[in-house]
Amino acid sequence: MSEMVPPEVRPKPAVPAKPAHVVPSSAHTPHGPGAGGPGSGGSTLLGYIGIDTIIEQMRKKTMKTGFDFNIMVVGHSGLGKSTLVNTLFKSQVSRKSAGWSRDEKIPKTVEIKSVSHVIEEGGVKMKLTIIDTPGFGDQINNNNCWEPIEKYINEQYEKFLKEEVNIARKKRIPDTRVHCCLYFISPTGHSLRQLDIEFMKHLSRVVNLIPVIAKSDTLTPDEKTDFKQRVRKELEICGIEFYPQKEFDEDTEDKSDNDKIREAMPFAVVGSDKEYQVNSKRVLGRKSPWGVVEVENPNHCEFSLLRDFLIRSHLQDLKEVTHNIHYETYRAKRLNDNGGYIYLAMSDHCMLGILCFPVEFVPSAQ
Amino acid sequence: MSEMVPPEVRPKPAVPAKPAHVVPSSAHTPHGPGAGGPGSGGSTLLGYIGIDTIIEQMRKKTMKTGFDFNIMVVGHSGLGKSTLVNTLFKSQVSRKSAGWSRDEKIPKTVEIKSVSHVIEEGGVKMKLTIIDTPGFGDQINNNNCWEPIEKYINEQYEKFLKEEVNIARKKRIPDTRVHCCLYFISPTGHSLRQLDIEFMKHLSRVVNLIPVIAKSDTLTPDEKTDFKQRVRKELEICGIEFYPQKEFDEDTEDKSDNDKIREAMPFAVVGSDKEYQVNSKRVLGRKSPWGVVEVENPNHCEFSLLRDFLIRSHLQDLKEVTHNIHYETYRAKRLNDNGGYIYLAMSDHCMLGILCFPVEFVPSAQ
Repeated sequence: MSEMVPPEVRPKPAVPAKPAHVVPSSAHTPHGPGAGGPGSGGSTLLGYIGIDTIIEQMRKKTMKTGFDFNIMVVGHSGLGKSTLVNTLFKSQVSRKSAGWSRDEKIPKTVEIKSVSHVIEEGGVKMKLTIIDTPGFGDQINNNNCWEPIEKYINEQYEKFLKEEVNIARKKRIPDTRVHCCLYFISPTGHSLRQLDIEFMKHLSRVVNLIPVIAKSDTLTPDEKTDFKQRVRKELEICGIEFYPQKEFDEDTEDKSDNDKIREAMPFAVVGSDKEYQVNSKRVLGRKSPWGVVEVENPNHCEFSLLRDFLIRSHLQDLKEVTHNIHYETYRAKRLNDNGGYIYLAMSDHCMLGILCFPVEFVPSAQ
Repeated sequence: MSEMVPPEVRPKPAVPAKPAHVVPSSAHTPHGPGAGGPGSGGSTLLGYIGIDTIIEQMRKKTMKTGFDFNIMVVGHSGLGKSTLVNTLFKSQVSRKSAGWSRDEKIPKTVEIKSVSHVIEEGGVKMKLTIIDTPGFGDQINNNNCWEPIEKYINEQYEKFLKEEVNIARKKRIPDTRVHCCLYFISPTGHSLRQLDIEFMKHLSRVVNLIPVIAKSDTLTPDEKTDFKQRVRKELEICGIEFYPQKEFDEDTEDKSDNDKIREAMPFAVVGSDKEYQVNSKRVLGRKSPWGVVEVENPNHCEFSLLRDFLIRSHLQDLKEVTHNIHYETYRAKRLNDNGGYIYLAMSDHCMLGILCFPVEFVPSAQ
């Protein structure tokens, strides 16, 4: 039992157990008279509440549910797309590793092929889907060869939209939307080709587009610097905005972090899923008679910059921008284009349904 | 530069930098022949990727955006509702602290009044809204006095639904939905009253209902145990399922954790926003001539159990169950009831719109 001592009433202690504070928000009373007068404005807390445990609660939920990440690779054959994704995810996750042969014939049209794996690290499960686009840029006439790719991306938005408007919805809508599209630029040292420009022009509007310079071990450091600068300039002239777009920076911290990344892009990368012994360390690399290119050595290439950016700092943002910007843009366009109607031609047992949305007039003053 | 040593190709090392593994998922090829044959099944990773950094990325996002939490308190006047929320959030956050006087007259009908504060702790910002229901149970005739409360809860779902079906949606829909309803039971020591049962019967279907035994310092330990047992039994007989409902346990770990909580509920609490000196420590308590009730002392009352449950372990789950279960139930009912139509009578500048959703026939085999 507690020992009795003279009470000391101290409703607002000068030094709470953990410094924290409470600020009155805009009080609102839906059915009654005005609340939240001067009241409790800006007082300190009487002790620790535990609000910050929300982070730990979210961590636990994520550890249980895992998450989806869908990455698309585009570029003509021989640019090392499969090897790069294997290098990114440190395992044989690419389509070519998963049953397709290297000797597979180049398809006559652009195909879309996807393969999924579950990768677990530190207790976190990621369902990784790699979407490959064999045949892209490999034809004599490559007119409109971005169309099947754009179509695939939009089909995933459409799938999500249909799930979202269902009456009985799934607790978690399966997310097949492309969170990131890596576009492989040939390390020509010259300039972008017309196809590169056309593809990026079309796709940068519908997906998080990240251009990379493929097989950059063919470029000397000076050539690399020059080529990167030239590519950035050409992209700017053509009005192509790659991810992370300036307009979606949320605050000055975002802007400052992303400016550094934008200035360093497109990353000149080298991929490898082979290990070599260098200075008594095992490293992923490509060995030639004149040396070993260490793919994770920032002095050799920018693979590690791409990996850190893509996976370790911006993965969640790629998912959020896909949902909040690209999917929302698709959804709004879809509803507006159809005068608010969506015809749902669903599987076997579903009626053809109609969806019509309100046309809303937002007053210009708002 | 790297020192040249004989290469040692080791694509699948026995011991990767951090033990992790990759498991092939169900491969799918939307436009092409079968992928993901035996391929890369269950191989270990060639090193650390960084998948688990998603947790840190989510933490950073939450630190920036903060989160909403809306808690409703219901029970007749004098049961210490305002004091309890002040105790929970260690500050003067309740309606009564925010401009209303203690001498305020009891309203003639049930009113709904809300007040919001932003509380920050450990860098995490929570916009806390406390929804009070003065007048509940205080009339001579309390027939249907849960109706305005249920109406308010449903209005918040409706608000969210309207935002959700808009063509131009907000990036984050403001969440005014009630995440938790604390129902205060009188510490009679006898049994639940008819009003308690009727209220909980109606409300447990639409909101996360958490019954608590108010002002439990009037009960001796034996009386408390007896009363809790009686209340649990009555709730069971009446088919009232409070939060956390068994049917929403997601796995055996959830079930085991929640079983312990369910067996200890309803928590018999005491609130206080006054501090006293007990054993040279300052504690929140209530002082009487025969001693100090320490509200955070688990030997004195179950306040700390309620606080830990509500804030430190289940806050995120309360938000998710609100969204995934209660809101979804409302949404599905709303669409079904209206034969798929929603008439949106929106503010000044909006047209009266129509929403109709597909009626879907799910084959019984699925």
